[in-house]
Amino acid sequence: MAEQITLYYKHALSQIGNPEHGLSIDEINRLGDKIAQITTKMNKDRQAGKLPYRDLPYEDLIRRRVTDLAGKLKGKYETMMVLGIGGSALGNIALQTSLNSPMYNLLPDSKRPGPRLFIIDNVDPVQFGSLLDYLESRLDKTLFNVISKSGRTAETAAQFLTVQEMLRKKLPNAKLTDHIVATTDAKSGTMRGIVQKEGFASLEVPDGVGGRFSVLSDVGLFSAAMCGVDIEALHEGARDMDQRVKKADLMENPAALYAAIQYLFYQKGKPLSVMMPYSYQLKDLCDWYRQLWAESLGKEKDLQGKVVHVGPTPIKALGATDQHSQVQLYREGPNDKVFTFLEVEDFGQEVTIGSAGQVEELSYLSGQPMSKLINSEKHGTEYALLQSKRPCLTVRFPAINAYTVGQFIYLFEVATSYMGELLDINTYDQPAVELGKEATFALMGQEKYQLLKQKIQPVCDIDNNFLI
Amino acid sequence: MAEQITLYYKHALSQIGNPEHGLSIDEINRLGDKIAQITTKMNKDRQAGKLPYRDLPYEDLIRRRVTDLAGKLKGKYETMMVLGIGGSALGNIALQTSLNSPMYNLLPDSKRPGPRLFIIDNVDPVQFGSLLDYLESRLDKTLFNVISKSGRTAETAAQFLTVQEMLRKKLPNAKLTDHIVATTDAKSGTMRGIVQKEGFASLEVPDGVGGRFSVLSDVGLFSAAMCGVDIEALHEGARDMDQRVKKADLMENPAALYAAIQYLFYQKGKPLSVMMPYSYQLKDLCDWYRQLWAESLGKEKDLQGKVVHVGPTPIKALGATDQHSQVQLYREGPNDKVFTFLEVEDFGQEVTIGSAGQVEELSYLSGQPMSKLINSEKHGTEYALLQSKRPCLTVRFPAINAYTVGQFIYLFEVATSYMGELLDINTYDQPAVELGKEATFALMGQEKYQLLKQKIQPVCDIDNNFLI
Repeated sequence: MAEQITLYYKHALSQIGNPEHGLSIDEINRLGDKIAQITTKMNKDRQAGKLPYRDLPYEDLIRRRVTDLAGKLKGKYETMMVLGIGGSALGNIALQTSLNSPMYNLLPDSKRPGPRLFIIDNVDPVQFGSLLDYLESRLDKTLFNVISKSGRTAETAAQFLTVQEMLRKKLPNAKLTDHIVATTDAKSGTMRGIVQKEGFASLEVPDGVGGRFSVLSDVGLFSAAMCGVDIEALHEGARDMDQRVKKADLMENPAALYAAIQYLFYQKGKPLSVMMPYSYQLKDLCDWYRQLWAESLGKEKDLQGKVVHVGPTPIKALGATDQHSQVQLYREGPNDKVFTFLEVEDFGQEVTIGSAGQVEELSYLSGQPMSKLINSEKHGTEYALLQSKRPCLTVRFPAINAYTVGQFIYLFEVATSYMGELLDINTYDQPAVELGKEATFALMGQEKYQLLKQKIQPVCDIDNNFLI
Repeated sequence: MAEQITLYYKHALSQIGNPEHGLSIDEINRLGDKIAQITTKMNKDRQAGKLPYRDLPYEDLIRRRVTDLAGKLKGKYETMMVLGIGGSALGNIALQTSLNSPMYNLLPDSKRPGPRLFIIDNVDPVQFGSLLDYLESRLDKTLFNVISKSGRTAETAAQFLTVQEMLRKKLPNAKLTDHIVATTDAKSGTMRGIVQKEGFASLEVPDGVGGRFSVLSDVGLFSAAMCGVDIEALHEGARDMDQRVKKADLMENPAALYAAIQYLFYQKGKPLSVMMPYSYQLKDLCDWYRQLWAESLGKEKDLQGKVVHVGPTPIKALGATDQHSQVQLYREGPNDKVFTFLEVEDFGQEVTIGSAGQVEELSYLSGQPMSKLINSEKHGTEYALLQSKRPCLTVRFPAINAYTVGQFIYLFEVATSYMGELLDINTYDQPAVELGKEATFALMGQEKYQLLKQKIQPVCDIDNNFLI
């Protein structure tokens, strides 16, 4: 396939008349040697099996396992619910909303390529309870896919236990195995134990791949396959991007170049990285990117153990909507942001704007394609930001489909790896998440955390002297 | 009603063992005189009619106008679509999602307090086209509410023209007046002209109230009233909050105190303000706040005309979801953020977590209320952030209902006014949004912007030297 997504970086350069707030080509090129070293290191790491996420798109076994199970189950269910959080939800959500209709869940069965899909990545009793109420009368036609490497993530475990009990109570004659698929560690862990005991169909969370890098494994692909997404094309897009992002030459490698530009801006006082798609379908890919970028790059210490408190803050905005919300700040506020637009050439669906009739002031809109309007908004906003000396990048999508989305995912995964190397931090861990988890365990009454609970209690108790 | 939302600020103070990254009470108190002056000024401005947003909750006429029209129309429509963007959409969305079921649009007619509601604040041809496809067979039971002060906002105008033409074509025997309600300037402007010519029922965008401060006027209240929201209680909540936020004493005025704390942190190297509700229902109130804060406070010049490029960047996060996405960065990244949690005491709906049976590791969850889990997550995260010396505020909701949401809206509107005064900027304009609008007009071919178009063209043309 020839539909390549591309990175346009001219508007991040100083030659656009933005000497203080743009980069020079020389400046970028000076990172060339460093990038070449990183590329060599990453290739070695990959060969040594240390970067298994890089090889997911090549694993036929994953696609076969997912396709086989989806093939067996498709057509049997009207509704599907994914139980997961973080990396076990954001990729699934992004694939669904980028590649299926914005009206998907409201379409009649005949117009949907799969079951209605709900991905509830939270433990809000109103949200979760409302969905359970909705499912109650549909339970016999509902499939639950619980996704958790260990099975001990509190939110997912709570969702799973609740759903399991509901199935037992409301469908006493049904088999749980007809309603639950578990995606979990291949061999061990709490959920694998449950799978073995209960006999659930199961899929695998790959070893050595953090949640935020797992969308192209069983984790992200199963709900997508159930809902008609072409997972072969997703992997193909990722593989084709791999050919581009393993090049040693910085100026020919879009992942390395994206990271280099972000890195230089970060060093030069722009710690905020705004991603702003001009496409409603791409907005949840920004949430996926937001986890990838934040959790990978926000680190206290560098690889030498020095305290650095480093990490750009990713921000999600949506064009054209947020022009009427954030662009005032983006243009006039502190020049502390670098912008990455996502632009779509062919939306695949068009709306012709209606006639303005006698209304002179609106006649310029009459009969024009809506895609021209949204893309004009993008160019207009880009122009306005450049006038305010704000640097802009654009990732261009020739179209939105599984092949281009696969490219995008792989591009940003590898760009994140480059950025982590440039920042000299461990891209793949998330040590700071642990304490909050343990604190939750403590507050929920887990025996072994009772000492911690005593420490947390003062934070929970309201001191009326500081309450108004 | 006694259900007051409250502001808890203890965890923003240095006495929690956070000397470098907390505030002292003295430091806050030193702003007391300044705040008292601002309060006096704001009271004067208000009396002089310069802050009309402050008086919206007292306008019986607004409630009567909205209630009367909603009363006439309710029951006639199965679907309602709001056409608007920015301040003409974000408030409507926030009221709907905070006060109605998360499953609202999927509920059967008998379980919904009003029509299905779609608020499509964009001009994405796929999103808009998919919704039009969905509406095609339901058009005779669909009401459109177009919201635009002038009628010339490009996105809203494009939506309106398209819908109007669709109605004419698909329902040739129907009257447009049965399907369109316009909320616009009371006397003049493009949309008022259309209203007068076509005879549409209409509501008013109040004079002197910017879009982002307009949710408690016809703008935000009509779709809410149509969908069963108690708009009397919204206004009552706002009025009751007004009694609290007009107090001259900083330590007794939650809006002033919130602004003072945010201001001090902004001055002390924390330009990022994260709002993180532990409630799915409150998440879109954060988007509403995000516009309010960004567009009001992001300004190039102060009131003396000095170039200051000021403005905190508001960031939206969602608990517990974003613990698995952003908290790694929030704890270990740069200490450049202040956190505002939204915490709910009584969710009004409960889910009991299912039994863990023999699974020892999960037994701590068995039979516990899900609300306890999400609130434990909040306290756990707050504790973890405090351990990392990150300052935290909490707005506490005793419950989520129209009365408390009304309080919240008014609290943050007035806090924004205080913050603008502290930053010494014009809180109520948005000059930087104009250029992007004009650029869009130019690119869409409006005659009078052809000179501008020539300037923009180089930004639109792709230079292949910078494309990879």
